[in-house]
Amino acid sequence: MRTDLSGVHCSIARSMQVLHDAWGALILRDVFVGLTRFDQLQQDLGLSRKVLAARLDSFVVEGILEKRAYAEHPPRYDYVPTAKGAELFGVIAALMAWGDRWKADKAGPPARIRHDCGALATARVTCDQCGEPLLLETVATEAGPGGRLGPGTRMLGKLLSQRSKQARKTTPM
Amino acid sequence: MRTDLSGVHCSIARSMQVLHDAWGALILRDVFVGLTRFDQLQQDLGLSRKVLAARLDSFVVEGILEKRAYAEHPPRYDYVPTAKGAELFGVIAALMAWGDRWKADKAGPPARIRHDCGALATARVTCDQCGEPLLLETVATEAGPGGRLGPGTRMLGKLLSQRSKQARKTTPM
Repeated sequence: MRTDLSGVHCSIARSMQVLHDAWGALILRDVFVGLTRFDQLQQDLGLSRKVLAARLDSFVVEGILEKRAYAEHPPRYDYVPTAKGAELFGVIAALMAWGDRWKADKAGPPARIRHDCGALATARVTCDQCGEPLLLETVATEAGPGGRLGPGTRMLGKLLSQRSKQARKTTPM
Repeated sequence: MRTDLSGVHCSIARSMQVLHDAWGALILRDVFVGLTRFDQLQQDLGLSRKVLAARLDSFVVEGILEKRAYAEHPPRYDYVPTAKGAELFGVIAALMAWGDRWKADKAGPPARIRHDCGALATARVTCDQCGEPLLLETVATEAGPGGRLGPGTRMLGKLLSQRSKQARKTTPM
């Protein structure tokens, strides 16, 4: 069952709505790694064909995966990430880094990311302006132009717009 | 209903299992911003008290939030992020950046992150070794020591360990 969050003016809600749940993230993980065919995904994940088909359809409708035919009779497809889908790799990498750090068993991390620089990389979420890590203790959240008071942001909207007004008063523009 | 993914040897699955779904991410968002009390969360999100209480309990059991009493009669608590919970801010910021880029309406992003450097920041997921962005086209995934063939990684485990063997053959150590 899927809660409808389409009315929530929040980019976190919207992104999570696209991923849906852990299975959605695992389908993306597999496609990113190169398991792009229905039967490969079904075998890897052990999801029912019905559930897997529904998830893949929703990813195609959302525009994060696209179907490319690799056989015509019967029609068979690779599911490959679009540019919009490929950018979710950052989210997946951030989830993986947190899980490696806080949820790995004694054996160590289940998988590693090799970056083009040659290193085994751990994802770090940074500020695009200064390059330093974005940590909870080094940020403040302010209202944005698309913010609304409404379901999912009933108090938050007010709180953030008060903060933004204060920030405008106290910080040089 | 929550699928049990505890047997899946994958850090992405484990992290998503902790977040659970979009509501889990929104509870964390609110706590990170400073809405730390049950009634504030309930009012902001419009979740039923029963569902919200269950989510908060699961976050406390998981060790990502901790309860701090702010009143004794009746007992009332702030839910504040632990170190483990605070590190999920990176995941939330990456979700927000993707949603801002691909799902914002015409008005623009609903909220903004002000970084301590002074800039309005967009989260960028980077390699902790070289500082460059971790993009799908600049990474390869390899097997890690905690990887297993099993539910959720039936084909992936094999694929990654083949790749790691190849990488050991072709890259200088």
